[in-house]
Amino acid sequence: MGQRLADISPPAWLAEPHEGVSHEELALAARNHGLPLEALRYDVTPPGLHYVLTHYDIPWTDGETWEVRVGGRVRHPLTVGLNDLRARPAVTRRVTMECAGNGRALLTPRPVSQPWLLEAVGTADWTGVELRTLLADAGVADSGVEVVFTGADHGVERGVEQDYRRSLPLDVALDQDAGVLVAYAMNGSPLPPQHGRPLRLVVPGWYGMAHVKWLREVTVVDEPFTGFQQQVAYRLRQDADDAGEPVTRIAPRALLVPPGFPDFMSRTRVVRPGRITLEGRAWSGRAPVTAVKISTDDGATWTPAELDPAPADGSGRWAWRRWRATWTAAPGRHVLSARATDAAGNTQPLRQPWNRGGFANNLVQRQPVVCVPDGDG
Amino acid sequence: MGQRLADISPPAWLAEPHEGVSHEELALAARNHGLPLEALRYDVTPPGLHYVLTHYDIPWTDGETWEVRVGGRVRHPLTVGLNDLRARPAVTRRVTMECAGNGRALLTPRPVSQPWLLEAVGTADWTGVELRTLLADAGVADSGVEVVFTGADHGVERGVEQDYRRSLPLDVALDQDAGVLVAYAMNGSPLPPQHGRPLRLVVPGWYGMAHVKWLREVTVVDEPFTGFQQQVAYRLRQDADDAGEPVTRIAPRALLVPPGFPDFMSRTRVVRPGRITLEGRAWSGRAPVTAVKISTDDGATWTPAELDPAPADGSGRWAWRRWRATWTAAPGRHVLSARATDAAGNTQPLRQPWNRGGFANNLVQRQPVVCVPDGDG
Repeated sequence: MGQRLADISPPAWLAEPHEGVSHEELALAARNHGLPLEALRYDVTPPGLHYVLTHYDIPWTDGETWEVRVGGRVRHPLTVGLNDLRARPAVTRRVTMECAGNGRALLTPRPVSQPWLLEAVGTADWTGVELRTLLADAGVADSGVEVVFTGADHGVERGVEQDYRRSLPLDVALDQDAGVLVAYAMNGSPLPPQHGRPLRLVVPGWYGMAHVKWLREVTVVDEPFTGFQQQVAYRLRQDADDAGEPVTRIAPRALLVPPGFPDFMSRTRVVRPGRITLEGRAWSGRAPVTAVKISTDDGATWTPAELDPAPADGSGRWAWRRWRATWTAAPGRHVLSARATDAAGNTQPLRQPWNRGGFANNLVQRQPVVCVPDGDG
Repeated sequence: MGQRLADISPPAWLAEPHEGVSHEELALAARNHGLPLEALRYDVTPPGLHYVLTHYDIPWTDGETWEVRVGGRVRHPLTVGLNDLRARPAVTRRVTMECAGNGRALLTPRPVSQPWLLEAVGTADWTGVELRTLLADAGVADSGVEVVFTGADHGVERGVEQDYRRSLPLDVALDQDAGVLVAYAMNGSPLPPQHGRPLRLVVPGWYGMAHVKWLREVTVVDEPFTGFQQQVAYRLRQDADDAGEPVTRIAPRALLVPPGFPDFMSRTRVVRPGRITLEGRAWSGRAPVTAVKISTDDGATWTPAELDPAPADGSGRWAWRRWRATWTAAPGRHVLSARATDAAGNTQPLRQPWNRGGFANNLVQRQPVVCVPDGDG
């Protein structure tokens, strides 16, 4: 191993069949964290239970002096502090956020990266300023095509030293309906450090990579952005030399609150015979969820779950919805699943969708449960 | 695999040399979480960055109706609600908490359980009521020898269905100096669900297993408690049939804030040549930390770090202390370490202390760093 930056990053690799999780993957799993699935019970995820993925370090930031610069192809570049933002009209949106790599560690072969099982999700009330109003104040030039967002987290990835940086098409950034926020509060409190203190982007319906944390720069550009996190990472590729499609909006997914109680080590769930209410959440960033079906026989048969109505005021548009179903458990081993479908006809696959990054994989969950006769234990 | 409770838990095992992390260990790593080491910069760990270990599920609790029962070998059993507790004199203590399994995944052979590297630590300001005052009100009978604490988290572990339950010797529970709290607030806010909402025990200086979360019962007993978490788990054993010593107080440890910036996948640290301030935290639950030494050559030589003074009012007695040192980095690969010593003469070993549970292991940290010449990258 040399001392050049290009030598520091390991190459991308796929795990061999039955290859255990590596020390590198474990180091990521230990520092990032998921939502324990029992926390699907909360409409809004309490702080510390919402999933977090940080590419590099969580920066040490100072909210009092923090400024975000709005520049590039604009007529009036702006530099805006936190107090300036708080003085503007505040908007709060309830948004379900999911990591693009959720489910990666269940894939075969397993792409080696942050090894999520299914817990990389959470829902929060994000408060901030509409991005489009900031851009309107700055006056986007006619030549603008994308907006690049730069965070303060700094590191090296595949040999490329970088600040974390992602772009959005200008039509998403400016669209009232898309609802992109520059957010300074989560669940009514200042952003926690790990969620972007003091400022982050929130892009309703998009996977987590778009929600740039520790936001420092908003730059209108006149050519599509080709930075690492846009052109190298977060692409759906079957082969290493495939250009791939970009990862964008969240595919539909339903998850169960694991019923009963767990075994500490195996996380196997134990229930007693009888009627059990199954519940969980379902979401899609592509269109409203319209149906959830459940299976208690490992996918052989499916029955509709009851889906909570969406709030009439539209406030739930970007948030997960609760579903419920009843199940009469009989002694034995069972596999429970839930499957979401959205209004655009997207549904969860029953066989793994696979790509080299392990992105946007929304394979149906399989939750093993053991029903133990009354009196045992 | 059968349907009996006894068949559900896997047996305890040790990983073979070079055996990757198992799916079961990953499931624990994904739901529990550690302190990203850059968060060692904070005196008090912000919510969501403090380590969390939950044996079973995080219970769904209601603070309004929650009660804790103080009973067993007492003259006046009590049932105390949250408002009753808040009406009593409040005490706030700054306490560094560490999981007894911290460092486990770095051991050879690796005991298979929650696979912590080094991040299972955090420091919080815990507010609550002195346990000894509750016990004084209940009137401990002369026959009492231990106090058993029962949490609401329920599960099965090695075939034993249980509520999480641990005991303390009566002399610890009643000792003013030991400072045990029944806490309802963390960093000035109600306990987050994952830290025991609405009530938990805080046992300054002890590893995390003693700080029973979701506290429901405080029971004085007249014989030493022999429950699972006391007599089976949390013992220092070399062999499976060894009775072992109990895990109690935190052994000294120092950790570094990783300098420079990371590679995303390998977490290798990158610095540039020149003077660098190294900093970190050091703690011991056995006696005050008296010295920290650092090494920048993989333990070949050691030099003293500067240790922040302890607060004169004694408020830092159970909390970590900051240390600092300067290092002049030269191009090449380096391994940084810090080593804490406490006033009782305990110091960190340079070779791994090993036991079958991987408990109370305070082997010195090894932090690889690559110093890359200016101009590269």
